[in-house]
Amino acid sequence: MLKVIAEDFINPDHIGIVLPLYAELVEKTRLEPLCIAYDLFVDQRDAGHFVFIEQWPDHAALDAHCRAEHFTRLVPQINRHRRSEGTVILMDPFAA
Amino acid sequence: MLKVIAEDFINPDHIGIVLPLYAELVEKTRLEPLCIAYDLFVDQRDAGHFVFIEQWPDHAALDAHCRAEHFTRLVPQINRHRRSEGTVILMDPFAA
Repeated sequence: MLKVIAEDFINPDHIGIVLPLYAELVEKTRLEPLCIAYDLFVDQRDAGHFVFIEQWPDHAALDAHCRAEHFTRLVPQINRHRRSEGTVILMDPFAA
Repeated sequence: MLKVIAEDFINPDHIGIVLPLYAELVEKTRLEPLCIAYDLFVDQRDAGHFVFIEQWPDHAALDAHCRAEHFTRLVPQINRHRRSEGTVILMDPFAA
């Protein structure tokens, strides 16, 4: 199981432009057969800070997501409105 | 609904010390009556980077968690082994 946190930092003046792009990205990604969870959140202290919390069976499924038509079409459109580079963390479940 | 990401950065030489502290913190927090989700993950690229993904009904429930006996006892013990300050993001679900 692969857990992912992907953070985007959007120009505050462009938030209204990216909202429908994010909505379509979430809707289409959840239809991917290998997607376990794909949830988007917004920082309560920064309306331009968007945080995806994702779950995939493995790296191959995440790679397939990044090659999907909706990803390769929508993500570059969203990225035009970034104020800084996004971040991605790939994680394993904790085991003591 | 309140979603939380809390990140800890532990000295790599002290990871073995914090693992049982994290295990107890997760176990006891999940027993809190207001806890919806409290999952801990480890960065695949940094074994000292621990990431909590939490869900609470509201801020009051998170505040109660931070006052719980297990939190006030274990978190200062964990923090002794930090290599840098942790971060916390409080989030709302995305709504287009």
